Amino acid sequence: MSIVARAEDYSRWYLDVIREADLAENSPVRGSMVIKPYGFELWENVKAGLDRRFKETGHQNAYFPLFIPMSFLQKEADHVKGFAPELAVVTIGGGEQLDEPLVVRPTSETIFGYMYSRWVQSYRDLPLLINQWANVVRWEMRTRPFLRTMEFLWQEGHTAHATAQEAIEETLRMLDVYADFAINDAAIPVIKGVKSDREKFAGAVNSYTIEAMMGNGWALQSGTSHYLGDNFARAFDIKFLDQNNEMQYCHTTSWGVSTRMVGAVIMAHGDDQGLRLPPVLAPIQVVVVPIWRKDHERGQVLAHCDAVLAQLKEAGVRVKLDAREDQTPGFKFNDWEMRGVPVRVEVGPRDVQSNAVVLARRDQPGRDGKQFGVPLEGLAVRVRALLKEIQDNLLAQATASREEQTTRVASYDEFKEVLDSKGGFIRVHWAGSDADEARIQEETRATLRCLPLDVPEGEGVCFLTGKVTDRVAIFARAY
Amino acid sequence: MSIVARAEDYSRWYLDVIREADLAENSPVRGSMVIKPYGFELWENVKAGLDRRFKETGHQNAYFPLFIPMSFLQKEADHVKGFAPELAVVTIGGGEQLDEPLVVRPTSETIFGYMYSRWVQSYRDLPLLINQWANVVRWEMRTRPFLRTMEFLWQEGHTAHATAQEAIEETLRMLDVYADFAINDAAIPVIKGVKSDREKFAGAVNSYTIEAMMGNGWALQSGTSHYLGDNFARAFDIKFLDQNNEMQYCHTTSWGVSTRMVGAVIMAHGDDQGLRLPPVLAPIQVVVVPIWRKDHERGQVLAHCDAVLAQLKEAGVRVKLDAREDQTPGFKFNDWEMRGVPVRVEVGPRDVQSNAVVLARRDQPGRDGKQFGVPLEGLAVRVRALLKEIQDNLLAQATASREEQTTRVASYDEFKEVLDSKGGFIRVHWAGSDADEARIQEETRATLRCLPLDVPEGEGVCFLTGKVTDRVAIFARAY
Repeated sequence: MSIVARAEDYSRWYLDVIREADLAENSPVRGSMVIKPYGFELWENVKAGLDRRFKETGHQNAYFPLFIPMSFLQKEADHVKGFAPELAVVTIGGGEQLDEPLVVRPTSETIFGYMYSRWVQSYRDLPLLINQWANVVRWEMRTRPFLRTMEFLWQEGHTAHATAQEAIEETLRMLDVYADFAINDAAIPVIKGVKSDREKFAGAVNSYTIEAMMGNGWALQSGTSHYLGDNFARAFDIKFLDQNNEMQYCHTTSWGVSTRMVGAVIMAHGDDQGLRLPPVLAPIQVVVVPIWRKDHERGQVLAHCDAVLAQLKEAGVRVKLDAREDQTPGFKFNDWEMRGVPVRVEVGPRDVQSNAVVLARRDQPGRDGKQFGVPLEGLAVRVRALLKEIQDNLLAQATASREEQTTRVASYDEFKEVLDSKGGFIRVHWAGSDADEARIQEETRATLRCLPLDVPEGEGVCFLTGKVTDRVAIFARAY
Repeated sequence: MSIVARAEDYSRWYLDVIREADLAENSPVRGSMVIKPYGFELWENVKAGLDRRFKETGHQNAYFPLFIPMSFLQKEADHVKGFAPELAVVTIGGGEQLDEPLVVRPTSETIFGYMYSRWVQSYRDLPLLINQWANVVRWEMRTRPFLRTMEFLWQEGHTAHATAQEAIEETLRMLDVYADFAINDAAIPVIKGVKSDREKFAGAVNSYTIEAMMGNGWALQSGTSHYLGDNFARAFDIKFLDQNNEMQYCHTTSWGVSTRMVGAVIMAHGDDQGLRLPPVLAPIQVVVVPIWRKDHERGQVLAHCDAVLAQLKEAGVRVKLDAREDQTPGFKFNDWEMRGVPVRVEVGPRDVQSNAVVLARRDQPGRDGKQFGVPLEGLAVRVRALLKEIQDNLLAQATASREEQTTRVASYDEFKEVLDSKGGFIRVHWAGSDADEARIQEETRATLRCLPLDVPEGEGVCFLTGKVTDRVAIFARAY
């Protein structure tokens, strides 16, 4: 079991961690991965955190067809242009050539649009607030587990509203939901912003994003929320009679977070010992490792472990006992560190005698992160407080790291110099054009990640054009 | 809003209920349905009940690819023969013709088999106990919402074991899990049995089933658990070194329950007023309907409703207030009866004065099912007891109905006579051949549903062949 150091080869480190922590594996199907149980449980916890927030904001789940008639995709001009090169197409069904090919959904605006046009007649039918958890397929050339795979799992919310204002409010509400999840559950300090026209969703008026910084300073778009205007409503005829008995087009939104979030968690927190999972999302929050040498110690130590387990389970902590007899405690320590378990409880003969345990935290390696002689009585309270502390610390570390790797520059030369020497996020005033943006990408491989919503800077001079502007942009190399 | 009576046209009644209870709708994609929020929440409750049982029996969830290389399906001879006519095939990806077509999974034994062959080396790696929740596609000619759709949602468990005995135990354990769920959560008294060779899964040694009886006396196969022997292990080379250092093939199982279970719930319990949902699965267990005439009553009644709501929510009851102002109480009563909500709480001005409510149960129509003047104090305890009573009553009614519609016959003439006059399950001693079974199906449209595992009858005379046998079979017309 070994992983390369991040500083040596970040890309390989990522793949090493996924393999050694047993999160996922390549499958024989090009660009598709198998999500293994430990990785899937992490995704299930992501799902639970998001799903609860969706329901709290009035959304319901439903399920729409996997296959979409090719003609549906062609109804919105920008949409088909954006997705046509990435489609997987079913041409044979039940042994026969199909009259109209079926597309395996790359996203579901079109099929939702078709159904919504049937469900909406009156303003009383609005808003429609529906989400689905589903698999989608995009024929990607270069894939990386969790970050970019041909098939991936995600949720896609699709809503229809009576007015532009309501739809824009919904778009921003779901952006806030995503940011709240990322910050409080995933401990990732994301930046909320709007995408440039070049980077927005195919068919959207505006695309909003949460951008996260990975351990190597690159950006990762971790969730998006789109205001679609009446583009899809016009394409699919989603109309309603308003209070004045006039026919109006709806305004729609869509928003999605995918298994990519698992990649974000790996890269935002991982270190050279492997994964570090935020306690809120960790499949196993606490692992208990028994330690004994002599046979007569074994029974006592395991009984003590059982008491620890019972107390923590009772308190709702996700805890696991590692009672493997063919592995040393040292091997187990490394193994669970690799898998990012936030807290380790060690139980040896001395702990049995003193009715205590040793606590070790994943986010503070070595002796500094250990507490000795922690009494069994009240352990659960202590462990829960420690989990909270670790959760907060991961967020604080990621925030500090992002701040440290965010640079403001005054010129394009400085921009290029910082990008090559230090990387990270470059925050600038921005009055450039689409063409300027494209040129920067071509020359530096940095893209305009977003125009952040929170702009305390006020007006300033664009680093490229020299124009005075109140628009601020973040550029970075990105996954 | 209206549905046909079951006795008049059971088939149409089923479609009417699905439409009026807002469970699902046909989509523009041939044979695919849209599962609407109310239907999907019912499915989510089915999932939760099964998933909990899978985890309690040591299984973990994972996710395997949607696409399967065509060559994989061809590795197990019976398997490909069974599924080839039903496949949806992707031949174009990213704008290019694919070298090897990809099949949209009809079931995942083959891709699990491929991965398991990589994961299993030693007896220490066994058993492998993995489940996935997924969509699958089978190109069906005649579709019916929930019962048979081109795409459907399901779970498929796939396990690998060191010995035949362990695999058979697993197969039967999961059959028990399914029966436990059906009986205790879905209130459907299923019969556990083994499928005849003619009806078993393509590639299985033995297929076990839970068979349920629908409201019209027809059978519905509601879950299956397959012992696959070493068929897939040989096809995919799933081998391990045993304790004696000898190479052995694994024995594997697979088992699945699908959205068909939602169809079973509809048809096992529904009546001429619509759905009747078992409280354990009902998305809404209790609906609160405020009743007032004069404006000054409105505030008091709604405040009383809020107190009811708060108390029931606190007790973990899934409760909803129907405060629609544009509908009468009578309309609401019918509406929630149609949707099968087990308990209705009515709150009128008199209830406010007496600090009480009226309770009405869905499973007892009219005045008999009503309790007046139920005190607000302690209401939650009373409601929870009532929900339990309704759950038990639905199971008792379904069991009584099945018993009433199960007939034992002594001759083929009697068999045909009963089938045409009364229908239901026909329970017989059975020593017939595959050809006999085929002939019965051709002549009567009844199929051999299963050979039940529980056979108190002992030996008897086969109704068709006259041979003495201890094998018992259930025949019925089936979905």
